[in-house]
Amino acid sequence: MPLIVTGTVGIDTVYTPDHGHRENVLGGSCTYFAAAASFYCKPVRVVAAVGEDFPPELRQTMDRFEGIDHAGLEVRKGSKTFRWGGKYLDNMDQRETLYTDLGVLAEEPPAVPKAFRDSRYVFLANTHPAVQLGLLEQLPQRRLAVADTMDLWIETARPELERLCGLIDGLVLNFDEAEQLTGKRNTVAAARRILDLGPRFVVVKKGEHGCLIVHKDGIAALPAYPTEEVVDPTGAGDSFAGGMMGALAREADADESLDPSAFGAIHRAVAHGTIVASFNIERFSLDRLATLTRAELDERYRRFAGMVRFG
Amino acid sequence: MPLIVTGTVGIDTVYTPDHGHRENVLGGSCTYFAAAASFYCKPVRVVAAVGEDFPPELRQTMDRFEGIDHAGLEVRKGSKTFRWGGKYLDNMDQRETLYTDLGVLAEEPPAVPKAFRDSRYVFLANTHPAVQLGLLEQLPQRRLAVADTMDLWIETARPELERLCGLIDGLVLNFDEAEQLTGKRNTVAAARRILDLGPRFVVVKKGEHGCLIVHKDGIAALPAYPTEEVVDPTGAGDSFAGGMMGALAREADADESLDPSAFGAIHRAVAHGTIVASFNIERFSLDRLATLTRAELDERYRRFAGMVRFG
Repeated sequence: MPLIVTGTVGIDTVYTPDHGHRENVLGGSCTYFAAAASFYCKPVRVVAAVGEDFPPELRQTMDRFEGIDHAGLEVRKGSKTFRWGGKYLDNMDQRETLYTDLGVLAEEPPAVPKAFRDSRYVFLANTHPAVQLGLLEQLPQRRLAVADTMDLWIETARPELERLCGLIDGLVLNFDEAEQLTGKRNTVAAARRILDLGPRFVVVKKGEHGCLIVHKDGIAALPAYPTEEVVDPTGAGDSFAGGMMGALAREADADESLDPSAFGAIHRAVAHGTIVASFNIERFSLDRLATLTRAELDERYRRFAGMVRFG
Repeated sequence: MPLIVTGTVGIDTVYTPDHGHRENVLGGSCTYFAAAASFYCKPVRVVAAVGEDFPPELRQTMDRFEGIDHAGLEVRKGSKTFRWGGKYLDNMDQRETLYTDLGVLAEEPPAVPKAFRDSRYVFLANTHPAVQLGLLEQLPQRRLAVADTMDLWIETARPELERLCGLIDGLVLNFDEAEQLTGKRNTVAAARRILDLGPRFVVVKKGEHGCLIVHKDGIAALPAYPTEEVVDPTGAGDSFAGGMMGALAREADADESLDPSAFGAIHRAVAHGTIVASFNIERFSLDRLATLTRAELDERYRRFAGMVRFG
């Protein structure tokens, strides 16, 4: 059953401390999410907008991933595609934004096509929570809805974000955003406070330190996959979410009796997200996902399971 | 078979952002290590020195832990006990040192008593690597030797530290120290470089983010035990090492054919260290370990295994 993602398709320029830079490469939350999710379930439906400047070669890269339905990708005449430039600092876990050209992001949000309204698994990538609420309303048949957010919305749109939290099954955010949202420094305490707003689970991302799942039925912690190959962390969070949601949709499709927001299902899905994100950061942009195989994913997943399992 | 630890017994004053402060409480690497290890194996032999100012009530606290042999604890007439004062910053993962009164630490290191020379499992807590080398020489029957170190020695005694690395089975250090020692920002790459110096395994500690084991036979990653109860992180690293070494000694004693430096044994032992450290930080000083039971340790270990195991 279909997985849908709403977010951005953009053009990125990325500078890294050790691996040079890349200009005008494919980026955006939807792009990373959909590419990652496409390894686990089909179709992955994309709702986003680009301008008429969106280069055909970037569109070709997007089309290399099988099973992604771009019927919800609006190409707007007279508009500009979202562009972002960033520079990773020495530790690769922090970055500076060099520029942000909002382009279509400053316009009306894209609509959910009628044919997408029966989507069952919903991921609302990071955008203004009022927009996320509007998109969610257009997806009445959803079985599982998860949202991402960021510091900007916590600061400027808290009431809408809290309303959103009352309507979704899960929230994904960074550890510092969890603290900002709740005033709690301790990550477990912060996540528990977020559960009080409504979601059944929270996934707190800690970058190279992995993530924490705080669920109404339990807590789990996962390290990141330990790797020496980190070229470009851009899209790590979105590919993580794509792997997670794709794995959840696949598992729930295989077993109709499974509750896709159940603790065990989320735990396994987060492990899949961890693995696909660990591949994504090995090259710039979508380059690594473009050559990735299901066999490589499966092998690293098994290896990861062995790395964290003791006793 | 006996486990021996060489390090400090001290008097600490600790300030915390949320839980007030405590003055002149029991501290020191040997103290935390031995208390933690005593839950896993007996005897735990302590080699350290205090001054004649060492308060009887702190000695009584040490004696509450069964199975610790203090025959190697020198009480020096006319000398002062090591004292440390520290203040934890808001995030609890960073601290400022308020004062350090070296006392006996500025004198001759304590000798290993003759009766301790048959010790099989050796932990050299953090001190000058030349002193660690001298202690190691007095333990010719060792089956497993692991050392801790710190930034100061990496900066001021690198040749001795590198020599020590050639003689030990394992090194335990913080992630920033691993970077300092090797010039490698990536933790896996840094740990691999340390293996080139001699040890069979490296445990890289990341505080609240858990740790990474890089072993000649594999890599494992463990999150910290996710807890909301963090009162005083002092001794987290030493109690972690105590749990790890105690569990290793217990397992190797139970099965003579087991190589205590084998990857699987280290992995399980690090999980035990993680658990005992997670209790230690719930109260000031040794307060939590003093009331801890074997049943509590076992229960949290099982719960932790479930938290990290997926699939």
